[in-house]
Amino acid sequence: MADPTKTRRYETMSGIPLKNHYGPHDVRPYEEIGEPGQYPFTRGVHETMYRGKLWTMRMFAGFGTPEDTNRRFHFLLKEGQTGLSTAFDMPTLMGYDPDSERSLGEVGREGVNVASVEDMARLFDGIPLADVTTSMTINAPAVYLLACYIVNAERQGVKPSQLRGTLQNDMLKEYIAQKEWISPIRPAIRIMRDMLWYCTKEMPLWNTISISGYHIREAGATAVQELAFTLADGIGYVQMGIDAGLDVDSFAPRLSYFFDVHNDFFEEIAKFRAARRIWAKVMRERFHAKNPRSWILRTHAQTAGVSLMAQQPLNNVVRTTIQALAAVLGGTQSLHTNSYDETYALPTEDAATLALRTQQIIAEESGIPAVADPLGGSYFIEKLTDDMEERAMAYIRKIDDLGGIIRAVEDGYPQREIANSAYHFQRAVDGGERVIVGVNRYAGKEGDRIPTLKIDSTVEKTQIERVKDLRSRRDPAQVDRAMNELRRACRGDDCHRDNVMVAVLDAVRAHVTLGEVCDVFREEFGVHRDPAFL
Amino acid sequence: MADPTKTRRYETMSGIPLKNHYGPHDVRPYEEIGEPGQYPFTRGVHETMYRGKLWTMRMFAGFGTPEDTNRRFHFLLKEGQTGLSTAFDMPTLMGYDPDSERSLGEVGREGVNVASVEDMARLFDGIPLADVTTSMTINAPAVYLLACYIVNAERQGVKPSQLRGTLQNDMLKEYIAQKEWISPIRPAIRIMRDMLWYCTKEMPLWNTISISGYHIREAGATAVQELAFTLADGIGYVQMGIDAGLDVDSFAPRLSYFFDVHNDFFEEIAKFRAARRIWAKVMRERFHAKNPRSWILRTHAQTAGVSLMAQQPLNNVVRTTIQALAAVLGGTQSLHTNSYDETYALPTEDAATLALRTQQIIAEESGIPAVADPLGGSYFIEKLTDDMEERAMAYIRKIDDLGGIIRAVEDGYPQREIANSAYHFQRAVDGGERVIVGVNRYAGKEGDRIPTLKIDSTVEKTQIERVKDLRSRRDPAQVDRAMNELRRACRGDDCHRDNVMVAVLDAVRAHVTLGEVCDVFREEFGVHRDPAFL
Repeated sequence: MADPTKTRRYETMSGIPLKNHYGPHDVRPYEEIGEPGQYPFTRGVHETMYRGKLWTMRMFAGFGTPEDTNRRFHFLLKEGQTGLSTAFDMPTLMGYDPDSERSLGEVGREGVNVASVEDMARLFDGIPLADVTTSMTINAPAVYLLACYIVNAERQGVKPSQLRGTLQNDMLKEYIAQKEWISPIRPAIRIMRDMLWYCTKEMPLWNTISISGYHIREAGATAVQELAFTLADGIGYVQMGIDAGLDVDSFAPRLSYFFDVHNDFFEEIAKFRAARRIWAKVMRERFHAKNPRSWILRTHAQTAGVSLMAQQPLNNVVRTTIQALAAVLGGTQSLHTNSYDETYALPTEDAATLALRTQQIIAEESGIPAVADPLGGSYFIEKLTDDMEERAMAYIRKIDDLGGIIRAVEDGYPQREIANSAYHFQRAVDGGERVIVGVNRYAGKEGDRIPTLKIDSTVEKTQIERVKDLRSRRDPAQVDRAMNELRRACRGDDCHRDNVMVAVLDAVRAHVTLGEVCDVFREEFGVHRDPAFL
Repeated sequence: MADPTKTRRYETMSGIPLKNHYGPHDVRPYEEIGEPGQYPFTRGVHETMYRGKLWTMRMFAGFGTPEDTNRRFHFLLKEGQTGLSTAFDMPTLMGYDPDSERSLGEVGREGVNVASVEDMARLFDGIPLADVTTSMTINAPAVYLLACYIVNAERQGVKPSQLRGTLQNDMLKEYIAQKEWISPIRPAIRIMRDMLWYCTKEMPLWNTISISGYHIREAGATAVQELAFTLADGIGYVQMGIDAGLDVDSFAPRLSYFFDVHNDFFEEIAKFRAARRIWAKVMRERFHAKNPRSWILRTHAQTAGVSLMAQQPLNNVVRTTIQALAAVLGGTQSLHTNSYDETYALPTEDAATLALRTQQIIAEESGIPAVADPLGGSYFIEKLTDDMEERAMAYIRKIDDLGGIIRAVEDGYPQREIANSAYHFQRAVDGGERVIVGVNRYAGKEGDRIPTLKIDSTVEKTQIERVKDLRSRRDPAQVDRAMNELRRACRGDDCHRDNVMVAVLDAVRAHVTLGEVCDVFREEFGVHRDPAFL
């Protein structure tokens, strides 16, 4: 074997230079690190960490009809999963009903199709919404899906104030990286603002925005960029809440984060530690939050989809295990572990089970949860945490100089930085400087053929018939009234009088569909066009 | 899911109590930890660690005829393995020829069958012995196999002084745990002494004894017991060499170690760090070794076979990944990763490849090799290293008080301690206090059926015919002379005049078989009977 230590540069995936080894002089004074559960929370958000509460094992799942996904939900709960997480299909993510021509061939393919409150009821059939925590990965149409969830809960006799879970609802990262948008940036942020206002008043246990680095990273950002741009988005949302007249301490405790966990083991661990410290300082020093819960960065994590390879697919079990360990050692509150077959298709039940078992083995067999921040004090990890904090803060200051994150995104600044990183990464892979096992080294042997999940071809037909049937059964006058009220709210701008969230709730109760609500947005706000900055 | 943090005691698998978290006051002064590559080597045996030289990826392999295993060796070298490691079958391990009735049904089943120098030539066909490093897991008949390796090398034109590799050849752990013995303890140690004497003079690049904790651990020892008893065995062997009149610095640098890596992530990392520190102190302070290379504990590691489960076999990929990470973070020099199918059968080529890929992903994708002792300074890991050192030293002092390791083993002391630990572990599993994922929790679903390796039924017949054919072809007078000389050596006791290793080398050159040499041992030294201490 070629000696990799000769050709490889000694730096993290983000390009932070690495010394041969680190020592006591690399570590800042302990007061600045802090105890677990104490400001600035470098060592974790709770004193007892996983002794007090294990991370939530939250496997992202969704495919086919709501019934298909409902069965997977029940299966995962039976297998020991501790929280639900919903993946929606492309039509749902983009705000189109299944019978739209834009939905053709995509219904139920990469997630579950939900176009109405009735679909939402099917999705959570037999699952008491007062007892579970649910995550929904939805952004541009988040307001509609949250409204469906609330109305469905009401029908179960559960009040909004009892609901626990997380809505992704992070539009800035859509414009930065993921590109699943409907409206232009400022109206999209305005809808988020209305939701934040509503949820702050009505849903004290609900995480309204999950500020997401995952898609930023998957688009090619480095760990430092993921950290910086995600926190910059968070800063943008806090400013948005304050500008809406909310007290920072009334909503900040319900903001949560979502980070990727990639291959570079120590950089990923340090990223979680640095994220907590930066956020604590930002919330206390910049936004003058007084409630310690406002200072705390709670986060979900997902192993890096982009790190999985189609070649030699069982190698992905190894990658996911290493990444999951990093997330836990970094102190995540919740974790999704990817299935090894996800480069081919949606995970099979067996592959999803193995991914869940990965977390359970870490939780039950490795002994790791017994001690809070077990790597705290490591000369290397403390220094790397400092380095990441410093580099992320440089980006955040730059974004402040550009006039804030919304302006920076409108200017395409984070987009360009990410594209640049993605280009350099790919060049390193193509040049063999960055090794991917089974791909550009130790390749050639394809490994085991693996079974994949097939989506039933009747899904699209079923969902189209359902939405048409719904439209035929509902009261047209009620629909008209709700749609008009939504239009009126869109044209206004007052959180109280013209709240889009409140208007969408009424529309859902009138059985207005996803596509119809989003069509109002398209008509009222216009459609965002990719500026193609590059 | 039941909250496991409520019912679980917070202690390592060895029973070391764990605090909620650790801080700067838990760490001893840095001078006592030392820099990487400096006494007492807590932080690793080399300053540059894996930058300078990656660990050797050494996958243990052997089954069927020597040709079968030779093909696997060539396959593994092609797939990027960096050292060879030979697993022998039960007849070879116990010193019986394939045509012995004791060998019936076992020939080539759990390892390769080697009964003569001709088998050894087949095993390494096409592999230049001057260029590879070879490990041979053989103990009671180690002297015979090493002699075959040397004679085979001579025929390739390679001198003993050029050979690089490791012989397990650790009899104390056989009496403690593994139970593959021929002679009683003291003659067995005497054969080891003759080998040490020979190899010290003739094979300066060869590791004559691989002091093995692996089998001690697999028999049910805790990590602390594995550490203590293995180092106590090492102390016994150093004393043996000194008693034979060798200068400690002439042989100590060629002693190497072999540890298990079990599930408890941090305890395993701390075990490697504590092992290095104890050994450095023992060699310098107790044995007054002057060469820094005598102070250094170099080790091979193997993930824990006993941790693998037949249920849900792909879970074993996760376990092996976590264990492999611990070995690397602990600073091992060489590593075998178990295949996920090893609870069923010998590994298939695909399963062995995945196990090797596990190491390659850690080496090439995780970034871990870039920094020496990356966890050094961690409050928790430094304290756990101290705790393990203290507890292991208590055992070592106890063994000294019993009159040394040979006496302690004759008295059954380590055997009883291990049996006690095994009993407590099993009780914790049966009571559900210790969780094994897929076995006593999250069980019921058997997971994927996996392909297994089948051993060709003609192996036994082939090997029997070969050994009979060899006996018919050789010169009986030469055989008689060599056997008589071996008997004479066994009856003497002088390392120079009566060296058993030298006599076995001559016997191998005369084509005396494995079983014939070991029969001489059985006749001259008698056969060890299990004292059944319990």
